[in-house]
Amino acid sequence: MNFDPTEEQQLLAASIARFVEREYAFETRRRIVASPEGASRDVWRTMAKLGLVGLPLPAEYGGFGGGAMDSFALMEAIGGALIVEPWLATVALGAQLVARGGSDEQKRQLLPRIAEGQRTMAFAHAETGARHSLSHVAVRATPNGQGHVITGTKRAVANAGAADTLVVSVRSAGGDTDREGISLFAVERSAPGLSTHPLRMLDGTRAADVVLDGVRVARDAAIGAPGEALPLIEDVVDFATALICAEAVGAIKSANDATLDYLKTRKQFGVPIGSFQALQHRMVDLAIEHEQVRSMAWLACAAVDSERDVTRRMRTVSAAKVRIADACRRVSQESIQLHGGMGMSDELKVSHTFRRLTAIAQQFGDADHHLARLAALDR
Amino acid sequence: MNFDPTEEQQLLAASIARFVEREYAFETRRRIVASPEGASRDVWRTMAKLGLVGLPLPAEYGGFGGGAMDSFALMEAIGGALIVEPWLATVALGAQLVARGGSDEQKRQLLPRIAEGQRTMAFAHAETGARHSLSHVAVRATPNGQGHVITGTKRAVANAGAADTLVVSVRSAGGDTDREGISLFAVERSAPGLSTHPLRMLDGTRAADVVLDGVRVARDAAIGAPGEALPLIEDVVDFATALICAEAVGAIKSANDATLDYLKTRKQFGVPIGSFQALQHRMVDLAIEHEQVRSMAWLACAAVDSERDVTRRMRTVSAAKVRIADACRRVSQESIQLHGGMGMSDELKVSHTFRRLTAIAQQFGDADHHLARLAALDR
Amino acid sequence: MNFDPTEEQQLLAASIARFVEREYAFETRRRIVASPEGASRDVWRTMAKLGLVGLPLPAEYGGFGGGAMDSFALMEAIGGALIVEPWLATVALGAQLVARGGSDEQKRQLLPRIAEGQRTMAFAHAETGARHSLSHVAVRATPNGQGHVITGTKRAVANAGAADTLVVSVRSAGGDTDREGISLFAVERSAPGLSTHPLRMLDGTRAADVVLDGVRVARDAAIGAPGEALPLIEDVVDFATALICAEAVGAIKSANDATLDYLKTRKQFGVPIGSFQALQHRMVDLAIEHEQVRSMAWLACAAVDSERDVTRRMRTVSAAKVRIADACRRVSQESIQLHGGMGMSDELKVSHTFRRLTAIAQQFGDADHHLARLAALDR
Amino acid sequence: MNFDPTEEQQLLAASIARFVEREYAFETRRRIVASPEGASRDVWRTMAKLGLVGLPLPAEYGGFGGGAMDSFALMEAIGGALIVEPWLATVALGAQLVARGGSDEQKRQLLPRIAEGQRTMAFAHAETGARHSLSHVAVRATPNGQGHVITGTKRAVANAGAADTLVVSVRSAGGDTDREGISLFAVERSAPGLSTHPLRMLDGTRAADVVLDGVRVARDAAIGAPGEALPLIEDVVDFATALICAEAVGAIKSANDATLDYLKTRKQFGVPIGSFQALQHRMVDLAIEHEQVRSMAWLACAAVDSERDVTRRMRTVSAAKVRIADACRRVSQESIQLHGGMGMSDELKVSHTFRRLTAIAQQFGDADHHLARLAALDR
Repeated sequence: MNFDPTEEQQLLAASIARFVEREYAFETRRRIVASPEGASRDVWRTMAKLGLVGLPLPAEYGGFGGGAMDSFALMEAIGGALIVEPWLATVALGAQLVARGGSDEQKRQLLPRIAEGQRTMAFAHAETGARHSLSHVAVRATPNGQGHVITGTKRAVANAGAADTLVVSVRSAGGDTDREGISLFAVERSAPGLSTHPLRMLDGTRAADVVLDGVRVARDAAIGAPGEALPLIEDVVDFATALICAEAVGAIKSANDATLDYLKTRKQFGVPIGSFQALQHRMVDLAIEHEQVRSMAWLACAAVDSERDVTRRMRTVSAAKVRIADACRRVSQESIQLHGGMGMSDELKVSHTFRRLTAIAQQFGDADHHLARLAALDR
Repeated sequence: MNFDPTEEQQLLAASIARFVEREYAFETRRRIVASPEGASRDVWRTMAKLGLVGLPLPAEYGGFGGGAMDSFALMEAIGGALIVEPWLATVALGAQLVARGGSDEQKRQLLPRIAEGQRTMAFAHAETGARHSLSHVAVRATPNGQGHVITGTKRAVANAGAADTLVVSVRSAGGDTDREGISLFAVERSAPGLSTHPLRMLDGTRAADVVLDGVRVARDAAIGAPGEALPLIEDVVDFATALICAEAVGAIKSANDATLDYLKTRKQFGVPIGSFQALQHRMVDLAIEHEQVRSMAWLACAAVDSERDVTRRMRTVSAAKVRIADACRRVSQESIQLHGGMGMSDELKVSHTFRRLTAIAQQFGDADHHLARLAALDR
Repeated sequence: MNFDPTEEQQLLAASIARFVEREYAFETRRRIVASPEGASRDVWRTMAKLGLVGLPLPAEYGGFGGGAMDSFALMEAIGGALIVEPWLATVALGAQLVARGGSDEQKRQLLPRIAEGQRTMAFAHAETGARHSLSHVAVRATPNGQGHVITGTKRAVANAGAADTLVVSVRSAGGDTDREGISLFAVERSAPGLSTHPLRMLDGTRAADVVLDGVRVARDAAIGAPGEALPLIEDVVDFATALICAEAVGAIKSANDATLDYLKTRKQFGVPIGSFQALQHRMVDLAIEHEQVRSMAWLACAAVDSERDVTRRMRTVSAAKVRIADACRRVSQESIQLHGGMGMSDELKVSHTFRRLTAIAQQFGDADHHLARLAALDR
Repeated sequence: MNFDPTEEQQLLAASIARFVEREYAFETRRRIVASPEGASRDVWRTMAKLGLVGLPLPAEYGGFGGGAMDSFALMEAIGGALIVEPWLATVALGAQLVARGGSDEQKRQLLPRIAEGQRTMAFAHAETGARHSLSHVAVRATPNGQGHVITGTKRAVANAGAADTLVVSVRSAGGDTDREGISLFAVERSAPGLSTHPLRMLDGTRAADVVLDGVRVARDAAIGAPGEALPLIEDVVDFATALICAEAVGAIKSANDATLDYLKTRKQFGVPIGSFQALQHRMVDLAIEHEQVRSMAWLACAAVDSERDVTRRMRTVSAAKVRIADACRRVSQESIQLHGGMGMSDELKVSHTFRRLTAIAQQFGDADHHLARLAALDR
């Protein structure tokens, strides 16, 4: 396993670094988060122009045909700069479901405009009580004429309030937690009967509860074969999970750098705080944590790109998420504590990195969830 | 040591519970936090009417002459309901400095109006790089005519943007971290040269950086003997630290109750989540944590009320804060995790209890700080 | 709750301290552990003469009528000096079952000779796969003439190889893990068909597997009503558990003292190791742990002495054991580590305290077991 | 980085596995440990015949010219089977110092007989208060005629009581902890004035304090240039540290396998213990730990084999040891606990794996030591 980036990946990383430096200073981010939309359409278009939105989308539909490893540096940057634009919801989830499971017509319709930055997407999947279980889908789609009618509620869907198109998971057969019988439909946010109820998340990002009240969907809105969507969902959510691990790597690096900088520049009793032995040891420990987390995230991205054995893919992704969730908790708490009280204030970036790390630990399943998945895989 | 409340304390607790139930529902709190001031003058006046503001203030100046133990139930309620009104800043810090160190004239001037809920206070003490060290005071007061002139900045002072009167610590002699040479002055927020720069804290409370640019203070604004304020500051901050431990007890109880309730009512795969063995064990562990934290907080409150030996008082308070900071971290992380992802959303109270617990772990010194203080006491 | 000992308890503690100093130096203990029996009959008789064996046995049968709190100082000394003589097996378990559940005739026969130090006992209860569950009793007693015949194996019974009399738990009715149907019999170790297979435990104490191959017991050998022994067993094991918590307190104190002493006297790079800030903080943390553990152990001893509500007694004992098991693990690991590698050698007492703490964490149920018991009590 | 073994390495691993299966069953090991010497000369000769002793010794002196990665499988087997024969002391330390720093004559004299299994060695280095610091050498060598006279004590030297030849570190110049001024001498154990005082270690291995009372060494007994031995010592101790990390991997695997086996075969309340969800999750967590530890150990072995930059070599080795020391503590405690009390008995292998893991965590420096080394490297 080679953990070093290719030359192409290095060039991309340099371009991303320039973008972040120029366009996503912490002050800019603060303004974006405080704005009514909570994300910037301008920034999104710039990302699209730089090719960052199309990175892991198919080349024939305007993307660059990359994989998770090609998106690693971007995710590190998203984690490092706390970028709130809906890359994960749009590219890693919504468009990815279309790219991997959609019809040619759906791809033609949706993907180029996504890659160009004209539209964003969301994946409306989680429901009350699901606790990260992907097969827990109780919202029903009832056959009706040539299509279906959907009624029910999806919870805390990232970017749902702003997305142009939502991919909605529904149950078309079986019990509420059966593996069989789950279908996906592409639904416009403007569809009659669909309403969104905005939520602010701990990490400053926006989400929304999505209420579907008799929303009609045509047959050709189905993504993939009806009733058989779970493997596709698992595939795409593993892809996004591997990517969020890379985001964690960037956020952890940012937290560690901020803490180290703080300790080196602040003085107590006349000497830099960072000269205290106990603090040095903890910083070194956090640096080791970052190295380990980076290896785990890299392995997870490699697995979602190349591992054909689904069980082995799941095992690698879940093992990475278990350790990375732990690392998120540890690093976030340590960085707050090592800032000596100042980490509580909104004005310090580390306070926001703390929040994002706390959220990443939970997103797509916490350590408990992935330990349970691993235990089930071994059975 | 009797950990059970007296009958009088029980009556008070019942009255507080009624107040919280009627006037501080989570929705009300949300509106208050989102308001421009970030705290409600109405709620504050109600608290004053119920005698809660004057609880630990001297009876001869409109208070009830109670101590930390008498305020225990109130602090538990403040932690449980996440009350953001500035009780700690006003009563446990600002007014307490006056009550314990001020002249009769100062007490007469300030305390009755505090107890009646007409005014609030703040304690402007922390500075850049101090990391919880109480003797780190670099802001200087220069003698000038009959009084002094103060120039410098105080960081992240709770309630500073709203307080009517600030108690400001300054250095009148010695080096920046000497124990000798620290003085306190009561300064009106409206004083010429004093400006505040608002900060939002992670826990939703408001604070402000206080910039003093040639603020003039008269000689009779000094609280206690000039240059000898540190023991008074240590006394009052220990008092507030013991009280915040009680607040943690209430917040931990609230987080545990919310988690237990969540686990009992939500179902996964057809059974209540709370029937899973692993989760039950963790809930039991959290309940033990609450019991232990309660004992530690009670001992700390007893110590600040009755322990005459300063070293022993400090030892008890610091030991309590060390353990309670650990418990805050553990309980906050566990409650988020046990909510299975839903704890990330602003709409759930537990997300806010998480924030407050994270803040309490830091406030008045984290575990590191109090371990260091304990080590220094033993030397 | 008053955690301070009475005057009488202080006198006893002083007498115990003298005994330990004179008769149980670490070198003496080393010789005793290496001896064929692994315990000293001389030391046992001295303990009996000092009244330590009869401490919690009924006064009318040669004891002193004390409880767990009266035995607290003795258990701390047993933990501190790593006394391997079979006090717990004999007095807290075997004789205690007789004292609480036996007939007058049984008490007359057994207890005075126990109190005088002439005989020792053991409680043969644990079986393969029981994992601390007290109701897991699969060894059967078959009615036979006027008595019963017992066949089966009891595992790792402390002092079984040396005890004169064993109390053996058997199933006389029901399934292997039913609460009903458990009986107790007093059996002489010399009984035909009973053999013991010696085991050395990690902590240097001796135990034995007890094989019962058609052992005949008379009807009057039954302790308490046949089939109804479980509440008595739970009562006595809670008593012993509370006492082992007190032993942990003594062992933790001893480990902390040894570590502190080591850090103060050893120098590295010309300064005492103990002057390193990081180590000081950890020592302070361990001292807080000792204080907390002492409170928990004291509450557990008070509960087994006075709490009439069985559920509340169990809750207090289990909560104490959960925390004390954690503390045993933490303190044992820290003390080894803080000894900087030297703690690995048999010649240092701390290496043996490490082992005993590791064993105490498991004995009568580890943290997992007691969390499960607590969860079951709350159901 | 390729973590998979080469074909040659696989063949070797198979041969080692056969050796362990045939010659080192747990019962055999128990007898060896209980024997007066505490290690078996027969086993040692078999290991030599299989080429295991000469594995990382130079081919021109009877070895196989391998490195740490070639010895990885052997170390895993040593950890898995708890082999107590003095491979590390002889091959990774004593003979390695000769192979890397000795004269041709010394190599000719010593190495072939080592590789053939005729002699064993030890490295007498640690002193009172050194706490893993390699530059702490206070034992002095005084020039005397053509050679030197050594007086002083070396502490807890592995295999010192049985080794034929000891490599002894001494100070020939400078202060007790200076980096300059350290020399190495090869000394026969039979040398006049040298005596050994046996110690048993927690993990069942034998060590000895080495007292040098005017031991005379000739000039040509010096290994390497006088006064400049520290880099050689650091090189060889890093080599041994990387190897002990591989031993930890084997011991952790063995502990995990034993625990899994225990959980699968034992039943409680009629179902296999291993079917309990909470235990499954912990087993999965331990399996992830094993995977991570294996990667870290592999990187450390690769670094000591190929990394020419000393600082980077040290960084990789120390980072591995930090994490592996943590893993040793976690896995050892968990395996004892998951065995539900039975892990305390000497008869279970897991009780001995627990001890060895506890020792490995300390050997060549615990997590504290290596964090301090990393912090110093970064300065």
